[in-house]
Formats: sequence, C-alpha cells, structure tokens
Amino acid sequence: MISDETMKTLCSKLVPLNYLNIASDARKQREKIIQQLFEKRKIPESGFDDIVIETLVTEISQLDSNNFPSKCGVGEREARIACDLVRRRHYGLGHGVGRSGDICENQPKAAGSSILNQLTNILTLDLIKMMGIRSIEKSILLPMATGMSLMLCFLTLKSQRSSEAKYVLWSRIDQKSCFKCITTANLIPVIINPIRNEDELQTNLTEFENQIKILGEDKIVCIVSTTSCFAPRGCDDIEGLAVLAKKHNIPHVINNAYGLQTTFLTHQIEQGIKEGNVDIFVQSTDKNLLVPVGGAIIAGPHKKLIDDIAKHYAGRGSSSQTLDVFMTILSLGRDGYMKLVRDRKENFNYLKERFEILAEKHKENILNTKRNPISIAMTLKNFDENNVSMIGSMLFTRGVSGCRVITTKDDKAIDGYLFQGWGSHVTDLINNTPYITAAASIGITKIDIDAFIDKLDKVLLKVRNNKES
Amino acid sequence: MISDETMKTLCSKLVPLNYLNIASDARKQREKIIQQLFEKRKIPESGFDDIVIETLVTEISQLDSNNFPSKCGVGEREARIACDLVRRRHYGLGHGVGRSGDICENQPKAAGSSILNQLTNILTLDLIKMMGIRSIEKSILLPMATGMSLMLCFLTLKSQRSSEAKYVLWSRIDQKSCFKCITTANLIPVIINPIRNEDELQTNLTEFENQIKILGEDKIVCIVSTTSCFAPRGCDDIEGLAVLAKKHNIPHVINNAYGLQTTFLTHQIEQGIKEGNVDIFVQSTDKNLLVPVGGAIIAGPHKKLIDDIAKHYAGRGSSSQTLDVFMTILSLGRDGYMKLVRDRKENFNYLKERFEILAEKHKENILNTKRNPISIAMTLKNFDENNVSMIGSMLFTRGVSGCRVITTKDDKAIDGYLFQGWGSHVTDLINNTPYITAAASIGITKIDIDAFIDKLDKVLLKVRNNKES
Amino acid sequence: MISDETMKTLCSKLVPLNYLNIASDARKQREKIIQQLFEKRKIPESGFDDIVIETLVTEISQLDSNNFPSKCGVGEREARIACDLVRRRHYGLGHGVGRSGDICENQPKAAGSSILNQLTNILTLDLIKMMGIRSIEKSILLPMATGMSLMLCFLTLKSQRSSEAKYVLWSRIDQKSCFKCITTANLIPVIINPIRNEDELQTNLTEFENQIKILGEDKIVCIVSTTSCFAPRGCDDIEGLAVLAKKHNIPHVINNAYGLQTTFLTHQIEQGIKEGNVDIFVQSTDKNLLVPVGGAIIAGPHKKLIDDIAKHYAGRGSSSQTLDVFMTILSLGRDGYMKLVRDRKENFNYLKERFEILAEKHKENILNTKRNPISIAMTLKNFDENNVSMIGSMLFTRGVSGCRVITTKDDKAIDGYLFQGWGSHVTDLINNTPYITAAASIGITKIDIDAFIDKLDKVLLKVRNNKES
Amino acid sequence: MISDETMKTLCSKLVPLNYLNIASDARKQREKIIQQLFEKRKIPESGFDDIVIETLVTEISQLDSNNFPSKCGVGEREARIACDLVRRRHYGLGHGVGRSGDICENQPKAAGSSILNQLTNILTLDLIKMMGIRSIEKSILLPMATGMSLMLCFLTLKSQRSSEAKYVLWSRIDQKSCFKCITTANLIPVIINPIRNEDELQTNLTEFENQIKILGEDKIVCIVSTTSCFAPRGCDDIEGLAVLAKKHNIPHVINNAYGLQTTFLTHQIEQGIKEGNVDIFVQSTDKNLLVPVGGAIIAGPHKKLIDDIAKHYAGRGSSSQTLDVFMTILSLGRDGYMKLVRDRKENFNYLKERFEILAEKHKENILNTKRNPISIAMTLKNFDENNVSMIGSMLFTRGVSGCRVITTKDDKAIDGYLFQGWGSHVTDLINNTPYITAAASIGITKIDIDAFIDKLDKVLLKVRNNKES
Repeated sequence: MISDETMKTLCSKLVPLNYLNIASDARKQREKIIQQLFEKRKIPESGFDDIVIETLVTEISQLDSNNFPSKCGVGEREARIACDLVRRRHYGLGHGVGRSGDICENQPKAAGSSILNQLTNILTLDLIKMMGIRSIEKSILLPMATGMSLMLCFLTLKSQRSSEAKYVLWSRIDQKSCFKCITTANLIPVIINPIRNEDELQTNLTEFENQIKILGEDKIVCIVSTTSCFAPRGCDDIEGLAVLAKKHNIPHVINNAYGLQTTFLTHQIEQGIKEGNVDIFVQSTDKNLLVPVGGAIIAGPHKKLIDDIAKHYAGRGSSSQTLDVFMTILSLGRDGYMKLVRDRKENFNYLKERFEILAEKHKENILNTKRNPISIAMTLKNFDENNVSMIGSMLFTRGVSGCRVITTKDDKAIDGYLFQGWGSHVTDLINNTPYITAAASIGITKIDIDAFIDKLDKVLLKVRNNKES
Repeated sequence: MISDETMKTLCSKLVPLNYLNIASDARKQREKIIQQLFEKRKIPESGFDDIVIETLVTEISQLDSNNFPSKCGVGEREARIACDLVRRRHYGLGHGVGRSGDICENQPKAAGSSILNQLTNILTLDLIKMMGIRSIEKSILLPMATGMSLMLCFLTLKSQRSSEAKYVLWSRIDQKSCFKCITTANLIPVIINPIRNEDELQTNLTEFENQIKILGEDKIVCIVSTTSCFAPRGCDDIEGLAVLAKKHNIPHVINNAYGLQTTFLTHQIEQGIKEGNVDIFVQSTDKNLLVPVGGAIIAGPHKKLIDDIAKHYAGRGSSSQTLDVFMTILSLGRDGYMKLVRDRKENFNYLKERFEILAEKHKENILNTKRNPISIAMTLKNFDENNVSMIGSMLFTRGVSGCRVITTKDDKAIDGYLFQGWGSHVTDLINNTPYITAAASIGITKIDIDAFIDKLDKVLLKVRNNKES
Repeated sequence: MISDETMKTLCSKLVPLNYLNIASDARKQREKIIQQLFEKRKIPESGFDDIVIETLVTEISQLDSNNFPSKCGVGEREARIACDLVRRRHYGLGHGVGRSGDICENQPKAAGSSILNQLTNILTLDLIKMMGIRSIEKSILLPMATGMSLMLCFLTLKSQRSSEAKYVLWSRIDQKSCFKCITTANLIPVIINPIRNEDELQTNLTEFENQIKILGEDKIVCIVSTTSCFAPRGCDDIEGLAVLAKKHNIPHVINNAYGLQTTFLTHQIEQGIKEGNVDIFVQSTDKNLLVPVGGAIIAGPHKKLIDDIAKHYAGRGSSSQTLDVFMTILSLGRDGYMKLVRDRKENFNYLKERFEILAEKHKENILNTKRNPISIAMTLKNFDENNVSMIGSMLFTRGVSGCRVITTKDDKAIDGYLFQGWGSHVTDLINNTPYITAAASIGITKIDIDAFIDKLDKVLLKVRNNKES
Repeated sequence: MISDETMKTLCSKLVPLNYLNIASDARKQREKIIQQLFEKRKIPESGFDDIVIETLVTEISQLDSNNFPSKCGVGEREARIACDLVRRRHYGLGHGVGRSGDICENQPKAAGSSILNQLTNILTLDLIKMMGIRSIEKSILLPMATGMSLMLCFLTLKSQRSSEAKYVLWSRIDQKSCFKCITTANLIPVIINPIRNEDELQTNLTEFENQIKILGEDKIVCIVSTTSCFAPRGCDDIEGLAVLAKKHNIPHVINNAYGLQTTFLTHQIEQGIKEGNVDIFVQSTDKNLLVPVGGAIIAGPHKKLIDDIAKHYAGRGSSSQTLDVFMTILSLGRDGYMKLVRDRKENFNYLKERFEILAEKHKENILNTKRNPISIAMTLKNFDENNVSMIGSMLFTRGVSGCRVITTKDDKAIDGYLFQGWGSHVTDLINNTPYITAAASIGITKIDIDAFIDKLDKVLLKVRNNKES
C-alpha cells in the first residue's frame, strides 16, 4: 500500500534509519517474490507464507471499484456486501469473474477480480504442464464442478458440430454425474461397456468404431473417455480413442476428474494429444488441488476451443473457487505440490501392500488393475449379497468414507437409461464377484490407511463370525 | 460443543456457581434463537450477531466427515483442504452441496453441508414470501449466477417439451447474458422488440401471440420475460404474458434478476402466478442479497418443476454461495432486510428528484417510466454521438460505475443475431434520442447519489463548454 | 507492499490500463490517508475502514525481524510464535514494546513494533488534547491497567523524593485498586476522608493541609486525587489540591480512571495544571477507549517526568494493549470518538431522568451530586440492611452488572487498614442511608438504561412486597 | 452451543438420522477431549486442532457478561469493545483477569475470563512439572514481562521482611532489565561479580556469604540468582545459593527467564528446592512458550507466597497474555512441547559443532561453558576493539539478530551503578578477550544456524581482509 521510499521517509522520524534499512531489505525481498509471480507467470518454487498471500489478495481486491474509498455506484450490481463476515471471508472481492459474454473477459469496474482470474488461469496452465501435459495451449478455471463443466463443453461442441449431431459416445463409468452431464445437455448418450481383460475393465475400442459406423460421424457430438476411476475399471485407452477420433474427425473430451494428481494419467493424455485428437480435458479443482468442491479446470491443446467454451458461459461467475485455487497454489508452491504428488504415490503403494496382506488373511484377492494408479479393488467372493451390503453400511457407521462396496447385482435407471450391475462399470452377468474399492488420492495419510484396513478387518471378521455362528 | 449441564459441572470447580448461573441463562437464550431457527424455519425477526453466526456455521461444518477428529477417508473426494487460509474462510466446509444427480440431495458424508443447503433454501423461500410472492411452493439456491441458472432452466424445460421444441420467445432486453443463456442452451431465440408507449418500452403482447401462431405452440420451449431492467424499458407485462402462456400451454420463465428487492416487481410476479402461467422465476443472489456474485435463486409455484431443475444439475456444486446467503440472511434478519428495502425506495425517490433538477438545468428530460421502480433515464438530446460516448468514458474515469450511456446507434451481433440500437432494448430508427441511465438498487446510499449527480453535472458542463468553444 | 508504478506495470499485461488507472487513483487515496497519519500525527477526522487498518498493521508488523522472509535469529528472544492462531491475532507482532530500560525505547530488531508504539503514544496525546487538556506535554501508554500504572508512578516519584519520603496523601475513594497501588509500592497511605456537602462527598482540603503540616512536606511522596468515581462522591477539588501541592512543592498524581470520556472532568485537570501542581494523571484504556482491560495512559505537563516513568518500567511490555488502542483510535477517528462522548452525555441525562421518576415512585431520592458527571446514586432509605443486600444480589442474578448497592455499614480491612462504611467513600456513623449507584459511561445505550430501570423497579417492588406481606 | 440431543432432533428433519449419528459420534469425541481438559487439568497428550481451540475460547468468552445477548451494564467498566477488529482478535474477551485486590480472583461478571485464567494457571503448573520441577505447589501467569514481574516479587518480599530490609544480593548478569527490576522496586542492589573458572563465569558463593555477614541477614530482602544467560556466564550455583539462603533464612528468587525450555536448568531449580531455599522462580512466557512478549510465570514451592504476590498485584490485568499461553499450550499438547524441547537440544549441539569448525578456521576458541546449555561464546581474540564493534554492526545489517558481540571494554551506568566491562557479566581488567555469543533457544531451526555461521564467516573474512590489506 505504501511504497518503500514513502515508508522510510515517514518512519524515519520515529525510528532510526538503520533499523528501517534492514526492514526495507525484507520488504524488497517480499516485493520481489510478488514481482516474479507477475513476470514469470509460473508457480513459485516455494510456497508463499500466509501473510504474503493475504496481503497480495487484499492488494488485488482493493483494485475493484467496490473497495474504492470514494466509490460512486449507480448500477444494479455494485458488489455491495451486506454482511461483514461475508466481506471478510472474500477479502472484499464481490464482482465475480468474467463478463456477460465470456467468463474470461475483464470487468472494467473490477480490475482486481480480473487480474485474479487471469493469474489463476496462468497458474493452472503451469500446473498442468508441470504435471506432464506439455502439449497444452490454454487452461481456464470454471466456477462449476466437473459435471456441469463437462456439460458446458458438450453444449459448446454441439453448437459447432453439424445440426444433426446429437450423440455422445461414452466409455461407461459408473459415477452418476459423468453420465448426467450428457443428458443434462439434452444430448443422447451411447453407452459403451468396457471389456474385461483378466481383472481389469478396459476400453472397448472395437465397439466405439462400430458405433461410429452405425451412427455416422456427423451425428456424433463427441467421444468421452475417462482417466481416473474406481477399480477394476482402468484408465481408458486414451491414445487409442484419440487416434480413432482423429481418424473420424470427431471431437474427443476426456474426463480427467482426479487425474491431474498422477503422472501416469497425465502421460496418457499427453500421448493422446500427440498421436490423435484430444480436444478438451476436464479436471476438478477439489480433487486435484484440495480446495472445497465447486470448480473445474478446462484445458486443451487448441486455444480457440477453450476460448469458445469460456464465451459459452452465460453471465458472470463466482470468484470464490478462483480465489481458493489461487491461494492454494501460492501456499503450496511447486515444491509443495510435487511433495503431495510423491506422498500420494507412496501411500498408494502402502495401501496396496496392506490391502494384499488383508486379502490373504481373508482369502480374498486384490484385483490386478495396472492402469489404475489410484483405486484398488479387493474381492468379497466369500460373502453373499446381503453380507456385502452390510459390510458397506458397517464401514459407514464406523466412520469410513470413500470406500465403495459393489454387489455387481444392483440395477439403476438414470434419465431413462438402465444400468445393469450399477457401480461395476459393466454389465456382466457371469463374472460378477462382489468387491470393495479404496482409493489413495492426494492428501491421504498413512493414518487413514491404517484406520481403514483395521476397521475393514474387524468388519469382515464380524460379518464372517455372524455368518458362521 | 459442550452441553450446558456439562459446562456447569466442569466449571463449577473453577468459579462460583452463581456466576455460572447467569452465564448459563445467556447460553440458553442463544441456544433458543438457534432452536427457533430450526423449528420455525423462518428468517429471524432480528439479525444474529457475528458470534452466533460463526458458532452456528462452525457447529454445522463439524458435522461433515472431513472435520471429524478421527476421520478415515479412502475415497477420491474427501474434502481435504491443503491451504489453511482456504479452510478458514470456508469454516472447514469442503464437500459442496448436492450429490451427483441432484443439487438438493443430502450427502451421507456431509451432514453439515446438507443441513446448510436445506436451511438456506428454506430461508430464501421465506424471503420470497416476505417480499410478497405468497403463491410459491419451492425455492432453491443454485451455485451459478443468473445467466447459467436460466440456461439450466431452459435445458430442463427443453427436456420436458416435445422433441420438436427449440424456440424461446424473448422480450428483448439488452443485457448480454439474458440473451446468451438461450443460445448457450443451443436453443433458438425469437427476439420480440418491445413497443414504445410514450417514453416507456413495454411488452409487445401482440407480437408474442403472433409468433406463437407462426411457430406453433409445440415448437416453443418457453416464453421469457424480464422484470428488472434499465429504463426506459419497463417491467414486462408479466400478467399479460402469463395469461398468454396459459392459453397456449407454454412454460413461462421470468428473469427477475434484481427484482426481489422491490415489492412493485414481486407484485407483478404474484399476479402472473394467480392469473396465468409463471413456471419459474430466477433472481441473482448478489443483486438482491448483497453477497458476492455467483448464485441465483430459482423459484416457482410448482414444487415438482423446481425439483426437476435441481435434478438436472450434473454433479455437486460449491457451497460458498449458500454459505454467503445463509450468513447474510441471518445477520440481517427480517428487520434488517426490510430496512434495506425501504431505504432503497427512499433513495430511488431521492435519485429521481436530484436527477429531475439536473435535467432541468441542462434542458434535458427525465423519461417517464412508471413500470421501472429501480432505473431512471435522462435524455442527452443536446449532445451529439461523439459527445455522448465521451460523457460515458469521462464518468468512468471519474470513478462512477453502473450508469449507462446509450447512443441508440450502436449495433451488436451476439452469436449470429444482430441487435440494432444495442443497449436501448429496441430497434427504433426514428425515435432515437441518446440517454443516460442510473439505478437505485439495494444498498445504494445518498452519498453515492450526491456524488453521481455532482460528477454528471460537471461532466455535462465540461462537454458542453468544449462544444461551445 | 507493491508500489503503485510496479503494480501498474505488472498488471497492465493482464488488464487494460484504463481500468488500472481508476484503481490506481483509489490506491493513492488510501496511501494518502496513511501518509497524513504519519505526517500530521493527529487522529484522522474520520475513521479508517477495516481493510486500511489491517493492511497498515500488517505493513508495520512486517518491519519486525521475526517476519522477515530470510530471518536469521540466534538470540534467546526472537519473537518466534508457535501457535498460528496466536500469530494471526497479533498480526505477527511478537517483540512487544520498549527495551530493557525504557518502555518507550525503540528495538533494533523490531522497527515495526517501535513505530506502532510511538504512533500510538502520539495519538493518545492528541486524544487527550482533543478532550480538553491542552497543557499536556507527553503521554505514554503502559501495558498495565490503572492500578499497577499508578504504582509505577509512585515508585518513580519515591525514587526522586528525599529518602525519607514514604507517605501518600490520598483522598479516600472506595475502590480497592486505587488504594492497593499505594501499599503495593510499599508506601504508607494517609487516608483523608471526604466531607459531605449536602448530598455530595467533597475533598477535605483542610485535612490535606493539616496532614502536610503534621507529616512534613519532605516525608510525603505525593498527593493522590481522583476525578471519576461512584456517586455520591464527586470529583476531587483538583484545582484546590493542585494549588496546595504547588504551595508545598509536593507532587500531585490524579487518578483519572475513566475521566477522559467527559469534558467536565478533563476541564478540572486542565485547570489544575494551570493553577497549581498536576504532575501525572492516569487513565485506563479500557474504560475510556472501549478496549479490553490491560492498559493505562500516563500523561502530564512535564515531558521529563513521564519519560522517567517510562524509564522506570523494567523490561519489555506487551504490545497487545498498544495494538488495541491503535486500531480503535483509527477505526473511530475524531468524529467517532466525539460521537461516543456526546452520546454518553445524552445517555447520562436520560439515565438521570428515568432514575428520578423511579425514585419518586418508590419514595426515594436521587442524591444531588453536581461534580459527578457519570455516576448517579439513589437512596434506599425505605429498605433495611438485609433487604438492601438482597436488592444487590437480585439485580446480579437478573443480569444487571455494574450497579453498586451500598449499605454503608460494611467494614473492610485492606493490607492492615480498616475502612468503615466500605463502599461509601467515607466513615460517617450518623448520615448513613443505604443507596444504589449506576453509571452512564461511554458506550452505554438507551437499551441498557431501560433494562436497568425496569429490572430495578421490579426488584424494589418484589422486595417491598415480601417485606409488607 | 447446542446440545447433542437438540442437534439431532432439530437436524433429523433435514437429513437422515444415520448421517447424523456418525456426526454425533464425532461431536462426542470432541466434547470428550474438552471434558478431559477440565477434569484431568493436565496438558493434553496431543495438541488440539484450531477449530477445537477457537470453539472452546468462544464458548468461554460467551460466559462473560459483555457477551450476553440481553446484557444490561450500568457500571464504569463493562468490557464494551468499540472496534470490531479488536473484538475479533480477543474473541470477545474484554474483562481482563483478576479483581482489584488479586490477579487470581474470579470476577462475578466475567465467569469466562475467570475460567480462562484459572485453567491457564493450572496448565502452566503442569508444564513446569512436566519439565522436571516436581516440587512446585503453585504457578501463576502475570500479564507483565519478566522484569516487572520480578519487581513485583521483590515488592512483595520487601513487605514481608523486616522494615529495615532494603538490600538485594544479586549475582551479576549483564542484561539491563535483570538489574532494573531491583532499582525500580526502590531497593538497593548489591552486585556480586561472578568468578572465572577456566572459561566459565560462576557464582561467587564466598562473596555472597561475605555480604550477608557485612550487611546483616535482616537487611537483605532476598538473594537473586539466574539460570539462563549468555555465555561464558553459566547458570548460577542454584543449589549452593539455596543452601546459603536457607542457612541465613533469606528468601531466594531465581530469574529463570528462558530456563523452562531445558531440563538442565529446571533440574538445578528442583535441586535447589530440595536442598535449600528457593522461594520464587520467574520465567518469561515469550521465551519459553513462543508467544508474543508480555507475560511471565511466577512459580514456587510455597503456595502462600505465590498467592501473596497475586494479591500484591493492584487492579485487573490484561487477559491477552493468558489467552496466548492457553491457546499455545492447547495447540502444542504435551507431545508438541516436548518435541520443541528435544529439537532445541539437537540444534544446540548442531550450533556448537558448526561454531567449533568456524572457530578452528579463524583460529579462535569456543569457550568451555558446561553450565550453559543454551548460549555459546567464541573468542574474537584476533580482532581489535574497533573491528569487534564493526563485526557486530555488520552482522546486524546482514539481518542477523540475537547474537552479541562483547568488547569487554564498555562501561555502562544504570541508575547510578557503574558496570565495568558491560556485557561480559564481570569486571575483569586482565582476562578480557572480546567474544561473540549465539544462542540455540526453543524454536530455532537449522536454517537459522546455517545462515548465521555462513554470515559470520563472511563477516570475519571481510574484516580480516580489510585489516590485512
């Protein structure tokens, strides 16, 4: 707020100048790291401390007109904030991001929010490159979670395809919002079940090609593949689908929901871009950046398409998600994020080890799913359907969250489409052993893993004993 | 956190019981206002103080699994928060609202966030009723601003209409996002210019009826009207359109962007509901509740339709907007909000008075727009096109935000549709006097108005002098 | 943190320069009010908003070595802060104020804390002048409440008086810490009972003169008078004592505990300084500035003596009290504080009016105490001793705090000195009507007064009815 | 705020009961750790998280009358807080601690502040025991730093000794406030220079005994020894002085300023208590608990004496220091504090190793000071007086804080007493090699040490080169 020279002049009447000189050196150091952030437009090597982050955010928010000391607002939207607690938690930011026609456009009366938005987009681009997807041109943060963000991508693609295009070819993954984002866009999903290769569920490339022929290239809005998912489904054959998409000139969208946290998955995307069509890949901010739910990063190798999606966003958006990502990236720094990535990998191995020992003890198997670097599945072949469900609810009441118990016998209808074997990603009436999955995602600790294995062990014992007695 | 009895027992070893008894009475009073909130499900008469609000939010967030002392998360989304500053500003809330298939559904691992969401929806319903729309059945807060929220309404309606339906009949209003929400949904807007009645622009009911005949009822997804807008456009003839919609069995969506703050506009909606079809009305949270940009309230007289929209939202959403609204409503209370409403009305009258005096001084007119209770327009008939533009930019550099200067001669193309006279809501090649608008919306102060009139006066003088010399 | 030019250069790559120019104007406005604070060294006319205050405090704290990005501390006291919550609440300030030998000295490794301390002392000096004591040369804030601060004044005076000096002449006031500060300093209090003038208790000047003669001027460390007190004691005859002190060349210390809030009392001090000896006057920060308990302002007309007291403080002190006062003065501004002062006066009159009506109803009297502008006493002549005590405890359990019920029959020994009629400021075995006092001090509201009168009325009725039945 | 049962009843209308049950388990866990704190009155094994700490502090502050929803204050001190930022940072606590006559007494209108004060005193007692001083009966936190706290101890002892007592026997240590606390109390210091034993400065027991004989036991208020100090002074011979004090029936006060952080020093105190007289030992909260400057812990083996000191404190005191200590102890827990203690010891060894290598490089010596576990001194025998001073100021401008450069040739007068060789703790006109000290105190990091050694190395080289050239 006060320039260094002013500070020294003002304060030198109060304290000796040599005391101030050292303090001034410190100020300059701090100013320099901020300056480098703006100039290099890269995630800083080391994270910033809280004071620097809060000061920077406050400086930025002060550039918005609602925070001007002598403001004069006679519009319908002046970012007035009634509740002081709300003002504080947003550091005075109220104008949101974007303008009516473009979520990335600058707002004349909100220079600060505009800068925040742009810087954050630049930092997420750097993050994606750092994680290995070098062939990327543009990345934007949308203030909507992955489902709605994917939907916006589909609407954008639809508007650019032939007026006949209405189908979305979708490699089945049993998470509801991955499917709903297609139907919400009023498009017609074509569900392509994966095929089983030993334990693992893999992309059914043949069926994709088959459907393209049946429906006709022009009728297809896009192909949708998924990287991160629950075992025993593996990452889709991104490269195979990319090549197919290129061959038929069909856009290819990747749901990379929580795939940014592991280089195995980002590598698939990078390969896809190099070898074929990857137009958009979408990842959620909460799962990859450990912020509250609500944002997604839309990225791709063609700047124009990403810009088109931004332009498709109607109206302004919340800047809250942007602020969360901005603060988190600055607080972690490059070192901090890469440490999280390394720790996750170690914890995945630890989870696998402990899971294998548990499986052996209970005469179950760990499914062999090499193309899934995050989620692990263990069979529950020694339990009947009732007991499998009971295991799920017992774990829940014991405070375990995030594991999934799959009977493979549940059916579910979503928006008029029936999914047999819901939860298992596949309709397979023969090879349907129930199983349980757990995931080692970013931020997990050994304490989580130990507690999970311990509780699961006790639950399995309890269920078996009840059965046996 | 600690029950009253426990507190007394624990503390009575440290301080005399009679000191604690008074404190305990105070605790009970505080507990009672919380209890009443849950039981009555109404906005409290008086606002809560900051401590009560923060304590309540903290209590609620502690019900989410990510805040459990002995948590055990093995999923891909465990609401882990990396940056402490982010955690603090969200009070530990991380799970967002809704589940994959429904933005209003409860999350098993986030009881707290679910409660927050439900309570907030209940409070916004109460707010709408308090503002005069009694014939309402359901209201939900979406974590997207008005533009995208309208788009979601259109997508939902489209999915329920005949497969042929693709047109949206739209009473023209020149704010970009009001139009883009139609094209983003990949629907075809039918632009119906308002008609001029003396100074005011009013709904062209005849043309609406005409278009319905031309296009066919079944081809129309919905009619879209607008309440709050810039003068000289007035509030649409909501009742007339509602009757028309009912007659032709066409859904009717109202863009009530900042209309919740004035009983004149809410009265139009209430009348519309009573006399015809009003299916959905949408209002932004920032403009009506003085929170940061990013949320909208979707409401209507038919519970099922609003539920359907909620079910159309793909994936989870940010709880940040919900939290802002929750805190703001509790901090204002019924009294606080109604005071804002009354103050606004007074300030509107004050703005009008001062504007009229200024108009007289500069030999301009205030346009007579009785159906616009928020925005006021003054002609700039004594200025040529260049000077009119200059007035706009001079006001901007003097820190005035929110006023609009309209030349009536600008053309603009949006998504392939040409708008002649952009900004003036109408294509009118004859009666095209330039003008300036200003709005007295909720939260405006006399200081804003005085500063605006003063600056405008100086700018007009300056521009005239330059011209004359 | 970032200079304006740097900001513009950095950001102009992200947002258009004309957006930044307006923001830059706003920055300059903010910078200017800070600059004026440092240059004028006066309380600003209007209060600063929270953002400016917090930014300024953060800027200041960043000048302390513990907040330097590349700090290198190898001492025993490096202001490391273990708990992040503690760091936040002190804005990173850890070094306290002062150096070993002087609470006002600058710390080489804490330029920020030193600046904070100096600025605050300058602002309190301005506040005292603003309240009417123009003949003041120096004012310092001590991080100890009034009792201990007075004690330090006595220790300092003692060290400067003849080695025989050991007596403190004290115009009796029945608040324990006013007396204990003498005995804690290991000095001998000479208690001089006030005399009754009609209802009011006034300074017994004759007895003061008498004691000086008996004990000998050289044996007396100082005279202690009090301005603010509970009725029916009035403000001491400050001018009379000042003249007496001057005549005998004895230091005169005024306990002005909560007297800074009213110009009646500050006027007495100003007159005392002009006509005689007033060496030190001490006031508490909590009572006059509405901050938490813990600080006192030591002021006087002779710079050297106040400096000597500062030099008498052994070791560093907490900067927490300084920070509270700094933030409060900046947030109130001159306008804000003077409004509090005016409101208090109005509320005093309101309390008096309501008290008089109540007194009439219960056939009691309001004591006529013209020299007490804050506290009011009402007789309880119609109640016996037991009932008077019961009134006190009934008010307490009904949540009334701060009123005092005086039986005039309680005896109390403090450090070996017996006070007959404790609470009534005087030993008066004849004229000993019980009474109740209430005070209208700064920050009181009509709501407090109404609640008090209402509860007192009910309690009196209840006690009378019990008695009568 | 809301009891668990109420919470469930209220919320079960909003979310399914089984979701709430898990949340309720978590609540109970949290409630239990609070309950144990009150019941066991011990520092918790593991630290509490921020949410629990803030919730607990808020719960406590709500028990104070100024935070009651329907408060009714008619006193002169009602803990009203004008500035919202100030209120927030104190969590609404305003009444301070203690009552007029006793810093440990409960306040009727501040049950919360009273509880906070008592709990904190209990926790500091536990901390002292944990660090090895088991023979302790009572510990209180004073809201004044060590210097003023020692002074209060002296005043208290003086009031209990014969009226002739006026001398304080003081084992010289060259930190100003350690000396000023005697003169501020208006007592006469008797300075006893330590004696050199090889490199180390040790207590001159003979001279103590000698002075007792010369002055007479009754004339002596107390003996003052010091544990933690700058090398080459070692910890005083606490046991020897304790035995001497017991023999002559003289109180013995230990300045344990930053000695609580190392078991070597606490062991000396424990031995002193067991074998002789140790009446009071005083330690600063900032140096031992890593909170901002401003508090001290007064402890001793005789409850009554510590109570007497509390009763000697005139008036209320700030609760800010108490709050800092409370929050810090809870956030660290037993584990956290002991880790800090262990880390410090390791870092001391690391500092010594690096210092030794540096000394060898520059042909200097590390002084052998076995009884100083915190501070290390290295000779600067190869530098003349000017250069030694220059080394000090060069280190300062390079951002090194806390190291001391001692020429041994400075003289300093404090309150009329001349200290020859100021800084070196001893007047020694022969053996006066200049030296530099550095300390490894709690919270130091390897980064600090590496930076210090590196900078010192460069400074020494630079000074030598200048000299040589």
